Amino acid sequence: MTRYFTEAASAETVNSRMGPDVDPRLAEVMTSLVKHLHAFTEDVRLTTAEWNLAIDFLTRTGQICSVERQEFILLSDVLGLSMLVDAIDHRRPTGATESTVFGPFHVDGAPVLPMGADICLDGKGESCQFEGRVLDLQGRPLEGACLDVWSDNADGFYDVQQPDLQPTWNNRGRFITGDDGRYRFRGIKPTSYPIPDDGPVGQMLSRLGRHPYRPAHMHFLVTAPGHRELVTHTFVGGDVYLESDAVFGVKESLIAPFERREDADAQWRSTYDFVLAPA
Amino acid sequence: MTRYFTEAASAETVNSRMGPDVDPRLAEVMTSLVKHLHAFTEDVRLTTAEWNLAIDFLTRTGQICSVERQEFILLSDVLGLSMLVDAIDHRRPTGATESTVFGPFHVDGAPVLPMGADICLDGKGESCQFEGRVLDLQGRPLEGACLDVWSDNADGFYDVQQPDLQPTWNNRGRFITGDDGRYRFRGIKPTSYPIPDDGPVGQMLSRLGRHPYRPAHMHFLVTAPGHRELVTHTFVGGDVYLESDAVFGVKESLIAPFERREDADAQWRSTYDFVLAPA
Repeated sequence: MTRYFTEAASAETVNSRMGPDVDPRLAEVMTSLVKHLHAFTEDVRLTTAEWNLAIDFLTRTGQICSVERQEFILLSDVLGLSMLVDAIDHRRPTGATESTVFGPFHVDGAPVLPMGADICLDGKGESCQFEGRVLDLQGRPLEGACLDVWSDNADGFYDVQQPDLQPTWNNRGRFITGDDGRYRFRGIKPTSYPIPDDGPVGQMLSRLGRHPYRPAHMHFLVTAPGHRELVTHTFVGGDVYLESDAVFGVKESLIAPFERREDADAQWRSTYDFVLAPA
Repeated sequence: MTRYFTEAASAETVNSRMGPDVDPRLAEVMTSLVKHLHAFTEDVRLTTAEWNLAIDFLTRTGQICSVERQEFILLSDVLGLSMLVDAIDHRRPTGATESTVFGPFHVDGAPVLPMGADICLDGKGESCQFEGRVLDLQGRPLEGACLDVWSDNADGFYDVQQPDLQPTWNNRGRFITGDDGRYRFRGIKPTSYPIPDDGPVGQMLSRLGRHPYRPAHMHFLVTAPGHRELVTHTFVGGDVYLESDAVFGVKESLIAPFERREDADAQWRSTYDFVLAPA
C-alpha cells in the first residue's frame, strides 16, 4: 500500500486509513463510496473551478434546509437515488404491487372514515371515486387492511403546505377493509404540481433542461396483518408528465385508469387493486 | 430508452432526461456523477435507514458552514478528493516541484520582507532557518520569484484562527528572489495540528477510526514571471503523522530535511529547492 498520496492509487490510500475496529457495514459503504467518488473525479477530470462550484452547491443545499424543507432529499429525488434506494430496499415477489417514493407530505393519524366517505373538504376540483380491492398474492381478499390515502388539492398543494388556506385533513383519510377486501372513497382527480424549485435543486434542474413537475397521483400506504407494508401511488393515466416525473416515481404498473363519468357518485372513477406480499 | 423508472436502468433513465441545450461539460459531469452514485447505491445495496443517515449527515455538514468554517471542503479533504482534484488539475512535467492542497489559512497581502527576516512575531516555538533556491526546469535560478509563506505557530494555530492572541501576520511573509534565485527566512519549526473535528466530519473520522491530525508543514505559494504558480507545502521530515495526514496532503517529494543546529541563525535549518514549470 502506498503510504503517501498518488493520483493513481488515491482511493486505495484513503480506504487503507480506516482503523481496525470500524463497523464492518460502515467500512463496506465508505470503501465503495470513496472508490466511486474518486472514479467519477478521474473520469471527468474535475477542475478546481468545478470543484468550487460543487462545494458551493452542497453548502447552499444544506443551508436552505429547515424544519419545513429538506433540499437534500429533493436532490436525492431528482437524481433518481430515492427511487433506487426504494427499489433495492423493497424488493417484492412477482405479482405484488410495486412501491414508489413516500414523499414528504404524509401525516400520521388521518381520520378513519367509513367506506365511501368523501376526503375532499375544500370543495375544489373534479370529484373522483376511488375503488378496488386489497388482495394477497393468491388473489384472496384481505380483511382488516388499512388504506391510508392522501393527495394534493385542485390547486396542486397538500393541506400541510397551506395550513391557513385548506381545512385540516383535506384530501386525507384512512379506510379499513371488510371481509371482501374492497375499498371505496371519494376524493378528487389529483393534479400535477411542481416540487419546490426556488432553491439550489431547482436551479440545477433548470441548468439540466428539466422541469420540476410531478404527474398527478394519489398516495397510498397500505397495511394488513401478516403482510408487508406498501408505500405507493396510483398515477392518473394520460397525465402529460407521466414520462418525465421530476423524481422518477412512475412505474408502468402504477398508472391507473381514470374514467370520466357523470353520475351520482362522481365525475371520475379510478379502479385499482393492491396486492400485498406476505410479511 | 426506458420511459419509466426501473432498477436495472436507473442511471440511464435519469440521464436521458437532460434537455437538448444543456452545456456539454455540465452534461458530461452530471452523466458521470449519476452513473457513479447509482453504481455505489447498487454495489452496497443501500438501505432506507442508511440513506436517512446520509441525508442527515449532509444536512448537518451544510448547516455548520459559516463565514469562518467550510465543512464541505473539510469533507472533501478527508475523503482525499481535494488532493485528487489538485493532482488532476495541476499536472506538471517531471522535475517540477509537486503541488498539494492550498488549505483555508492563506491570507492575501502578507508583508514583503527582506531576505533573512524573521516571520515569527510571537516569540514562541523553536526557530528555524528556511533556505533554498527557486529554479526552472533546466536548473537555472529564477530572479524575481515571489515566495508567499505561512505556517501555524508553536501552539498549532494560524494567526487568523487566534486574532486576539497572535500578532497580525504572525508566521507569514513574502520574499522576492534576486538573480541567484535564493531565498532565506527565519520562522519556526512548524507543529502538527488537528483539523476542526467538533462537527460532522470529525464524527465521521472518529467512526472510521481515523485521527484528525496533519503533520507539521510550511506553506509555500511560489510565483515567477513566465512560470506556473505553485501551491505546496514542505513537510517536517520525521513527523509522526507523515503517513497518516488527515487530508492526504503528503507527497514523498515534499518531505524536507529539518536539521537541528545551535548557532547564531536558528535552532533548526530546512533546505528545499522549488522547481517551477513554464507557463
